[in-house]
Amino acid sequence: MTDREADGRGASETGDPLLLTPGPLTTSASVKRAMLHDWGSRDRTFLEMNERVLARIAGMANATATHACVPMQGSGTFAVEAMIGTMVPRDGKLLVLVNGAYGTRAARICARIGRAVATLETPEDTPPDLAALERRLAEDQAITHVLAVQCETTSGILNPVEEIATLVADAGRALLIDAMSAFGALPLDAGEVPFQALAASSNKCLEGVPGLGFVLCERGALAAAAGNAPSLALDLADQQAVLEKTGQYRFTPPIHVIAALDQAIAEHAAEGGVTGRGARYAENCQVLVDGMRTRGFETLLPDELQAPIIVTFRMPADPAFDFTRFYDGLAARGYLIYPGKLTVAESFRIGCIGRLARADMEGALAAVDAVLAEMGVTSVAA
Amino acid sequence: MTDREADGRGASETGDPLLLTPGPLTTSASVKRAMLHDWGSRDRTFLEMNERVLARIAGMANATATHACVPMQGSGTFAVEAMIGTMVPRDGKLLVLVNGAYGTRAARICARIGRAVATLETPEDTPPDLAALERRLAEDQAITHVLAVQCETTSGILNPVEEIATLVADAGRALLIDAMSAFGALPLDAGEVPFQALAASSNKCLEGVPGLGFVLCERGALAAAAGNAPSLALDLADQQAVLEKTGQYRFTPPIHVIAALDQAIAEHAAEGGVTGRGARYAENCQVLVDGMRTRGFETLLPDELQAPIIVTFRMPADPAFDFTRFYDGLAARGYLIYPGKLTVAESFRIGCIGRLARADMEGALAAVDAVLAEMGVTSVAA
Ligand SMILES: Cc1ncc(COP(=O)(O)O)c(C=O)c1O
Ligand SMILES: Cc1ncc(COP(=O)(O)O)c(C=O)c1O
Repeated sequence: MTDREADGRGASETGDPLLLTPGPLTTSASVKRAMLHDWGSRDRTFLEMNERVLARIAGMANATATHACVPMQGSGTFAVEAMIGTMVPRDGKLLVLVNGAYGTRAARICARIGRAVATLETPEDTPPDLAALERRLAEDQAITHVLAVQCETTSGILNPVEEIATLVADAGRALLIDAMSAFGALPLDAGEVPFQALAASSNKCLEGVPGLGFVLCERGALAAAAGNAPSLALDLADQQAVLEKTGQYRFTPPIHVIAALDQAIAEHAAEGGVTGRGARYAENCQVLVDGMRTRGFETLLPDELQAPIIVTFRMPADPAFDFTRFYDGLAARGYLIYPGKLTVAESFRIGCIGRLARADMEGALAAVDAVLAEMGVTSVAA
Repeated sequence: MTDREADGRGASETGDPLLLTPGPLTTSASVKRAMLHDWGSRDRTFLEMNERVLARIAGMANATATHACVPMQGSGTFAVEAMIGTMVPRDGKLLVLVNGAYGTRAARICARIGRAVATLETPEDTPPDLAALERRLAEDQAITHVLAVQCETTSGILNPVEEIATLVADAGRALLIDAMSAFGALPLDAGEVPFQALAASSNKCLEGVPGLGFVLCERGALAAAAGNAPSLALDLADQQAVLEKTGQYRFTPPIHVIAALDQAIAEHAAEGGVTGRGARYAENCQVLVDGMRTRGFETLLPDELQAPIIVTFRMPADPAFDFTRFYDGLAARGYLIYPGKLTVAESFRIGCIGRLARADMEGALAAVDAVLAEMGVTSVAA
């Protein structure tokens, strides 16, 4: 038993509270130290670093031969909006598979940028209905693209992107994937799973700091999309054309964020890449779920739908359980958790990703015990 | 004479080459060290830091009472696109005063996002023609907004935003200002200069790291612009509405960039705010221009048009002068300069902004001497 477990107090390598959140998350001290320099945005050292980052990201999805990795300044949502605006043609139509807030947001983006959009919804604890998807694609020939969220962070559900991809490809449509909270930890092989584009960001399973999104885009489709985007800043085709031609960004890149990501990706590789990273998160998730269940908490999702990214727990029914006190009590002990985002049930969430391992999850469970005792909660049934 | 001047070798506090560029630029070691922590994006510590940053930015322009400071993830261009897309109504029309690449870019953005646009152009070494502006506004009643670039970084020219603002206000139109390379060093008082919105970013005269733009928006006009933007990510009205209501960002903020900016703004205040910062840059510029002229170099601009931000020098005519060798020779000595961006003449640029002082400019001049000698350049007349 480490000191941390003994006193139920969590701290990152830099002494900051541990972020048991879906990202931004706890990063290693070495990732943050990579930001202690300045580089010119047109300087060779930086451009090589940037090129290496983009190449290694494409490699993680086995997409090097087929897809360009196009960076996008801003947050993950900027990458999602750029993906939709660039890849869905002006006379196209996007069908969004919605079972949480990020699917809903993608549909909202699509409507806002003036592209035709439809949704196929299932409840937050239910994967997309594949038979309904097949029917919808047969019925509505105007649909050119389908968007799926790999791990819907709202609940933590793992959506079956592989089966969705096959079905969409069989129907002759193009697939866009929001892999924000999955990329780098859950496998996705471009050679096996056909997708036209996939968006993710620096600050989730890659364990970098926030400030950069990226989109893996099928090269042919991206070239054909020139001039399509209803935005200059969020135009992936233009971004890629200039990067390819000059090696440089059109507009100032978040240099320090990219330096941190370069280091984060080196640490990802050292951990065994997607497999190694995914295994650590799976262990974190198992320790958390087992421990919370032992204490009487219920997960929203059955194990077979749970991605090892973030876990939704139902709010205990005991009137002595007060979420604000629970949150503050854990925070005082160095563990920051996340409020729920569900519409179907009162809940809270605890993340398994970032620079966290078994001992940290055990420390968090010890802190949970301490806070429950403090509140005088005797039974935790939901 | 310091060691730096003696051996003509420049280095920042962290040993990196000095960036004599228009931003991203050399930041202080303490600004970079502010990034050595992780914060949750919904955590009180971060939210307070963010609130402080935005309040102090508004204060620098004396805009606290009248304008909201709306942050925008991404680079400065994202802030400019967000400003145009949010503030110019769908049936509005923007007149852009163009005398360089950034004015041209603003017009390109406006066309791309589907707003009516016109330009009034002058050569890169010439300020906007105020009489022509007045005529144009009288003739074209469809124009609702005018966009001016305070310091057009293409040449380094200082455009007369105060006179433009008065003229635009008298004509009953709204003014948008791209103050990217001026904000924080050149004074602009919202109480005296009427503007509807003004865009700038973290990584120029505020001496933060890149990754955040911001727009000062007149509160009434911003509220009236709800739903206007043809983008969700770049919607300043939505961004502000959520920030005001919850204190939180809609989408993940670049937390480390904001932490660095918080520290950078504290250092800006310690230096005497806009006045102090501007005075240091003016001295840097004077040392640079005097020193380069002594060596025979010619500036593009006469002194009265030169902003103390970045100086454009004409390329020397001597065939022994090779710009690539000049650039590489300076880089080898720890000084990174910038290529020219002019269309009217062969040129290069040297920046005066960032964590630089007199001794650094003198060191750069010594390095120029060494490189000229190395190349065997005897006369530097343009
Ligand atoms: C699945 C998913 N999509 C999109 C986003 C949006 O990313 P950002 O907050 O970086 O804009 C998130 C963020 O958590 C996410 O989990
Ligand atoms: C006047 C001006 N406007 C806009 C920009 C664009 O900013 P960014 O490169 O951060 O997108 C710059 C950058 O140098 C600038 O100087």
